[in-house]
Amino acid sequence: MSDTTIDKKIPVGILGATGSVGQKFVELLADHPWFEITALAASERSAGSAYREVVKWFQTSPLSPHMGEMTVRACEPTLPCRIVFSGLDSRVAGEIETEFAEAGYVVVSNSKNHRMDPQVPLLVPEINSDHLELVKYQSFSEGMIVTNPNCSTIGMVMALKPLLDEFDLDAVTVVTMQAISGAGYPGVSSLEILGNVIPYISDEEGKMETEPLKIFGRLNNDEITPRDLTISAQCNRVAVMDGHLESISVKLKKAATVEKMKAAWRQFSGEPQRLNLPSAPAQPIYYFEEEHFPQPRLHRNLEKGMAISIGRLRPCQVMDYKFMVLSHNTIRGAAGGAILNAELMVKKSIFRLR
Amino acid sequence: MSDTTIDKKIPVGILGATGSVGQKFVELLADHPWFEITALAASERSAGSAYREVVKWFQTSPLSPHMGEMTVRACEPTLPCRIVFSGLDSRVAGEIETEFAEAGYVVVSNSKNHRMDPQVPLLVPEINSDHLELVKYQSFSEGMIVTNPNCSTIGMVMALKPLLDEFDLDAVTVVTMQAISGAGYPGVSSLEILGNVIPYISDEEGKMETEPLKIFGRLNNDEITPRDLTISAQCNRVAVMDGHLESISVKLKKAATVEKMKAAWRQFSGEPQRLNLPSAPAQPIYYFEEEHFPQPRLHRNLEKGMAISIGRLRPCQVMDYKFMVLSHNTIRGAAGGAILNAELMVKKSIFRLR
Amino acid sequence: MSDTTIDKKIPVGILGATGSVGQKFVELLADHPWFEITALAASERSAGSAYREVVKWFQTSPLSPHMGEMTVRACEPTLPCRIVFSGLDSRVAGEIETEFAEAGYVVVSNSKNHRMDPQVPLLVPEINSDHLELVKYQSFSEGMIVTNPNCSTIGMVMALKPLLDEFDLDAVTVVTMQAISGAGYPGVSSLEILGNVIPYISDEEGKMETEPLKIFGRLNNDEITPRDLTISAQCNRVAVMDGHLESISVKLKKAATVEKMKAAWRQFSGEPQRLNLPSAPAQPIYYFEEEHFPQPRLHRNLEKGMAISIGRLRPCQVMDYKFMVLSHNTIRGAAGGAILNAELMVKKSIFRLR
Amino acid sequence: MSDTTIDKKIPVGILGATGSVGQKFVELLADHPWFEITALAASERSAGSAYREVVKWFQTSPLSPHMGEMTVRACEPTLPCRIVFSGLDSRVAGEIETEFAEAGYVVVSNSKNHRMDPQVPLLVPEINSDHLELVKYQSFSEGMIVTNPNCSTIGMVMALKPLLDEFDLDAVTVVTMQAISGAGYPGVSSLEILGNVIPYISDEEGKMETEPLKIFGRLNNDEITPRDLTISAQCNRVAVMDGHLESISVKLKKAATVEKMKAAWRQFSGEPQRLNLPSAPAQPIYYFEEEHFPQPRLHRNLEKGMAISIGRLRPCQVMDYKFMVLSHNTIRGAAGGAILNAELMVKKSIFRLR
Repeated sequence: MSDTTIDKKIPVGILGATGSVGQKFVELLADHPWFEITALAASERSAGSAYREVVKWFQTSPLSPHMGEMTVRACEPTLPCRIVFSGLDSRVAGEIETEFAEAGYVVVSNSKNHRMDPQVPLLVPEINSDHLELVKYQSFSEGMIVTNPNCSTIGMVMALKPLLDEFDLDAVTVVTMQAISGAGYPGVSSLEILGNVIPYISDEEGKMETEPLKIFGRLNNDEITPRDLTISAQCNRVAVMDGHLESISVKLKKAATVEKMKAAWRQFSGEPQRLNLPSAPAQPIYYFEEEHFPQPRLHRNLEKGMAISIGRLRPCQVMDYKFMVLSHNTIRGAAGGAILNAELMVKKSIFRLR
Repeated sequence: MSDTTIDKKIPVGILGATGSVGQKFVELLADHPWFEITALAASERSAGSAYREVVKWFQTSPLSPHMGEMTVRACEPTLPCRIVFSGLDSRVAGEIETEFAEAGYVVVSNSKNHRMDPQVPLLVPEINSDHLELVKYQSFSEGMIVTNPNCSTIGMVMALKPLLDEFDLDAVTVVTMQAISGAGYPGVSSLEILGNVIPYISDEEGKMETEPLKIFGRLNNDEITPRDLTISAQCNRVAVMDGHLESISVKLKKAATVEKMKAAWRQFSGEPQRLNLPSAPAQPIYYFEEEHFPQPRLHRNLEKGMAISIGRLRPCQVMDYKFMVLSHNTIRGAAGGAILNAELMVKKSIFRLR
Repeated sequence: MSDTTIDKKIPVGILGATGSVGQKFVELLADHPWFEITALAASERSAGSAYREVVKWFQTSPLSPHMGEMTVRACEPTLPCRIVFSGLDSRVAGEIETEFAEAGYVVVSNSKNHRMDPQVPLLVPEINSDHLELVKYQSFSEGMIVTNPNCSTIGMVMALKPLLDEFDLDAVTVVTMQAISGAGYPGVSSLEILGNVIPYISDEEGKMETEPLKIFGRLNNDEITPRDLTISAQCNRVAVMDGHLESISVKLKKAATVEKMKAAWRQFSGEPQRLNLPSAPAQPIYYFEEEHFPQPRLHRNLEKGMAISIGRLRPCQVMDYKFMVLSHNTIRGAAGGAILNAELMVKKSIFRLR
Repeated sequence: MSDTTIDKKIPVGILGATGSVGQKFVELLADHPWFEITALAASERSAGSAYREVVKWFQTSPLSPHMGEMTVRACEPTLPCRIVFSGLDSRVAGEIETEFAEAGYVVVSNSKNHRMDPQVPLLVPEINSDHLELVKYQSFSEGMIVTNPNCSTIGMVMALKPLLDEFDLDAVTVVTMQAISGAGYPGVSSLEILGNVIPYISDEEGKMETEPLKIFGRLNNDEITPRDLTISAQCNRVAVMDGHLESISVKLKKAATVEKMKAAWRQFSGEPQRLNLPSAPAQPIYYFEEEHFPQPRLHRNLEKGMAISIGRLRPCQVMDYKFMVLSHNTIRGAAGGAILNAELMVKKSIFRLR
C-alpha cells in the first residue's frame, strides 16, 4: 500500500451507483485508505430510498450494512463530496458530468462521453500520466473531468506500451473475447449467450481503434497529437463472467525477439508503481510461459484485478508477432482504473482537496 | 436429395464407433440413401459387446435400437463392408487405416494422420474434387485412403475459396473460437471451460496454417503443388457445444469490394451441388447482413449442419477485409464432411462397389 | 401423422408473435397440415412493420421468408383468422383474449390469465380432454377460450396421471430445475444465471401447486371439482437453454411397485394418440433405465419435443417413490401444447370452422 | 483470528496434493497461522518432480513459488510432518491412510473410506466436537484418523443441527444441485454438463442419507449410536463451478414457526466459534430474507467459504417446512472442513505435537 499520509479521507460520491460499474465502485472503495464514500447518486426513481432497497447487488462481496443504509440521492451537483466517480450510462453521462465539473467537482469518469474531448485526459497512469496536464486547459474553474479508456482498450494498450517504447509499432490487429459483465446489468440476455458467441458489440470496435491513438499521443500544451498507428479490431462476446481475453498481432518498426519482448513486459513499470499508489499493481504485467495461459477464470484477479496477463508470444506469419492479453474488465478496465486515476491525481496534487 | 439410383445400399463400417466422431457417423448414416452401416468397430475392450452397452451415447437423436444391438467388432480388416469411415483417435488411426487400405477397403478418414501424405487427397468436394485423382497413385491395390480437413480448417477454406478464385489471396489471419465437441469425449474438463476461454488447442494452429495450402494446391499427376499463401492462426476454446466461429482477415491480390465479395459467396457452388449428392447443402455458403450474425447456436445447423455461414464483412484497416465464419465442427467439419467425400467417390465411380 | 382430412387449412393468428412463445408458434406452425398462419399480431409499436424487422428471431430453425415478410398487425379482434394462438404477456393477455373471444374467435392461450377461470378448460389432451365440454358454458357466442398449463406443470401432470389412475395419489413434492427459455426474452440476465442457480421463480410454485388440482379435477356440468391432492413445489432456474427437469416424490394411496409404475408410464396413452392428432407424440412418456437419464440436452427433443421423459424411479424413504421428469418447456410446455389443444378441438368439432 | 499461541508452526503434509482437493489444501494452508506445509505427496508418477511441474493448478490464487518448487514425494509414511491432510482418491485412500495412522501420523481425511468406521469421528466441529473422544479407542498407538463428511452432507447437517436441537427432526427430503468442482479433475466432461443437468451422482445419495445419522449420533464410550432420522436424497449435477445448493424439506417433532427457525439459525454457534479457531467462520449460518437468495455465485464465499447460507424458509404443504441451503463444496465441504477439524484437534490437544 501507499506511504502517502492522508490526514483525513477524501469524501467521494458515486454517480450511477446502482448500475454495474457503480456497484463495483462501491465494492472497491469499501476500505480505501484515501477515499470515503459520502454520497451515492442514481436516477430520480431511486433517489430517496436506502441504497440496499434500490440496488440489485450482484457483487460477490456482500454489500456492507453501512453502504446499504445510505440514502440514494439524485445526480445533481449538490453532493457532499469533492470527487465524483461516474459509472453513468452514456445516454446521460455527458451532460451530468459536465454539470458536476462546472459546479466545481472533480469528475473521474468511466463513461465514454468525454473521452475524446480535446482537453480531457484519457488516462492510463502507467502510460500517459503526463496527459493530466490537460486539465489546466479545461474551461471549468475548480472542476475537471478525467476519463479512463473502454474496458477492451485497457488490456491492449498496457500490453502495447512496452512494445511501442522499445520497438515502435506500425500496425495492430486484435480479436476480443469479452465478458458479459462488460455489458452491464441486465445487459446480455442469457438466451443469447449461453453456449454461444455473439460476434458483435455495439460501438466497441471503433473505441478500440481510436482510443489508443489518443492514449499514446504526445501532449502539446493544450492538446494531444494522436499517435500514428493503425489498429483493426473485431469484438466478440463470450459466456465468461469477468475478464476480456484478446488475441493481438503486431507489426513492429524495429527488430525484436521473443525474449526481448517478454523482458520488456516483465520489466514494465510506471508512475503508479513509482508513486506507490494504493490501487497500483506491484507488477502491472504478468507474462506466462504456459501455453494454455492466460485464462479469464484463472488470471483476471491477479493483483486484485489491476494487473494484466500476457501469454503465447510467438512469431506471426502475417504480422510480426502475436500473443494473448487478458485484463479484468470491471476492475482494471472500469472502476479500478478510474480509482487509480483519482489516486494519481491526489498524489500529484492536481486539484485542491478543500 | 440425389437422383442417383443405388440398386443396393453400400455396406459401410465405422472405425472408432464409440468415440465422438464415430457416434456422429452412426447418427448421420442412420437413414442414408446410399450407405448402410454393417459394421461398428472399436477398441479391443469394446469388441464383442452390443454397441449400446459400450457407447456413452450423447447425441441428441436417440440411438436406434437396431444400431444399439449391433455387436461391436475389433478394428481389424475383416469387417463385412466396402467402405470404412474412420473416426479413430490419431494415436492409432495411422496404422489401422493403412491396414484397411492394404486389405482393399476404401478408407474415408476424419483423422489427421494421413492428411498430408503426398498421394492422399485432403478433400473438400466443393473445392478440390479433382484431387481425387491422386488415389490412382496410392500403393494399395483395391484399397485407398481419402481424408477431410481439420474441423477448424473447413469453415475457413470454404469461405476463402470464392475469394481465391475471384480476387486471389495474399495472406490470411484467423482467430478461432472453437466448440468443445471438437475435442471429443471426455475431451475438455468442465472445470477448465465453464465461464472461461482456453487460448490454446494442441496442434490446431499448425493444421490451419498448412492444410489449406494442400487443399488449394494444384494437382500435377501424382502430387499436389501447394498454394503459395501465408496463414497465421490463433486457436481458442470456448464454452460452446457445437460450431466453430472464426474471425478472418484477408489480404487480396486483386481489387475487391464488399458487394463483390458477398456476391462471390452467395453464388458459390461446387461439385456436390452439381452432382446433387445426398449430403450436399443446396447452398453451401450463407451470408448474413445482420451485424450480430452468424452465431454458433443459431446457424450451425443450417442445411443440416453442412452449410457454412458468413457475416460482418467490412474493410480491415490492417489487412484488406475482415469477416466472421461459422461452421458445424462435428458435421461439416468431421463426420458429415467425410460422408460427403464418400458420396462424391461413389458418384464419380472412384472405386468398384464389388 | 393424422388421417383427418382437412379440405382447406384453417387460418390462424398469433397474438404476441414477436415474443418467445410467439416465435415458437411461428416455428412449429410453419408446415402444419391443418393450420396456416394468416395473421401475426404484436404490440402497437410493431404493428405495420414486416415481421422480420420487428422480431428478434432466436429460434434455431431459420425464419421462413414468407413469414418474415408478413406485416405485423395490432392485437385487435379484426384479424383474418378463425383461431388465435396467444403467447401474450400476462400483463395484457387477460383483457385481449377476452376481447377476441367476445368477437367470436377461438382463443387457444398459453398465458396464465384465464387458466383458473371456472369455465375455461385447463387442457392437457392426454389427461382431461373431457374438460373441453366446459366451453359450452362460456359466455361467448361463437368465441371461446382454452388454455394449457404452466411450462413446469405439464411434465409433472403427465408423469402423475398414470400413477393417479392406478395407485391414486396422496401427496407430491417437486423440486424443479427450469430452463432459461421459460422466462421469455430478454428474460434472465446472463449475469444472474451463468455458472449459477437462482432458487426462485416468481409466481411459479403456486401454479405448480394449484393447476394440477384443476387438470385432475372432475367435470360436473359447468364446473370442475378440483382433485384432492397436496403438492409442494420448489422452483429453481438453472443455466439450461430448454427443458425443465423435475425431481418428484409421491405418496400413493394404493400399493405399487417399481415395475408396475414403469409399466403404467410406458403403456400410457391418451386421446391425442387415439385420435392420431398431428402434433401428438406416438409415445407420450418415455421411461429410461439408465441411471443418469433423463437429461435436458439429450431428451428434451424426443418426439419433436412433445413427449416427456422419466427416469430414476426408486423407493423414497420419506414419501413412497421418487423419480425424475423432463419436458420441453417451450414445446410441450407452451406452444406445442397449445397447438395440440387446438388440434383436439378441431378433431372433436368443438367449434365451427366457418 | 485465534488467540492461541503456537510457538512453532506444526509441520503438515498433503496426501494427493496434485488433485482437486489437494490443491485446495495447498491454497488454504498458504498463510495458515498454525500449520506449515512441509510435504506434498502424490502418486509414484509424480514423486521426485517439482510440484509445479506435475500439478495442473486451477485455483484462482496463483501457486506460490515456494510451493511450486517443493519436490513431490510418494504417499509413504516417511513424510517430515506431524499431520497429514488427505485428499486421496477413494480407490487408494483407505489403505494409505491406515498406513499413515499406524506409523503414528495424525490423519485428517476428506476421503470417504474411513468415515463410517466405528471408531473414526465423522467430525463437524460446530455439531459433534465431542465425537473426537472416539480417537482414544482407535487401534493406533500415536496415530489417528479423523474425517469430515461428504461435500453435499455438510451444508445440510449445518442447517439441520439448530432445528434438531430446538424442534427435533422426524424426516428430511433433500434435492441437490451440485457444483462440478465436487467431482474433482478432470471430473465431469464439459460435453455432459454445459447447458445441461445430470440427475445422478454416483454413490452420493447414500452418503447424504447415512452420514448425518452418525454426525448427529450420541457418543457412548467407544461407539456412536446413530440418530434415528429418515432422510431421502436426490442428487443432481449442474453447470456451477463451486457451491452446492440444496432444497430441503423437514418434518419436525415439535411445533415451530418460521421466526423461531430463523432465530435458531442466526443464533447458532459452536465449538469453533467459542474456541476462536483460525478457520472458524465468525457466523456459521447466514439467513437471507431476499426470496431469490442464496445463490452459489453470490454467497459461496461468505466467511472465506466457511459459512453456509440459508434462505426461502416457508411452510411445506407436504412436510412441515422447506428452505434452501448453500455451502462451498471444496472449502467448507472439503479442504476447509478438514483444516477446521485439525484446528479443533490442536486446540483440544487431542494429540501430542512432538
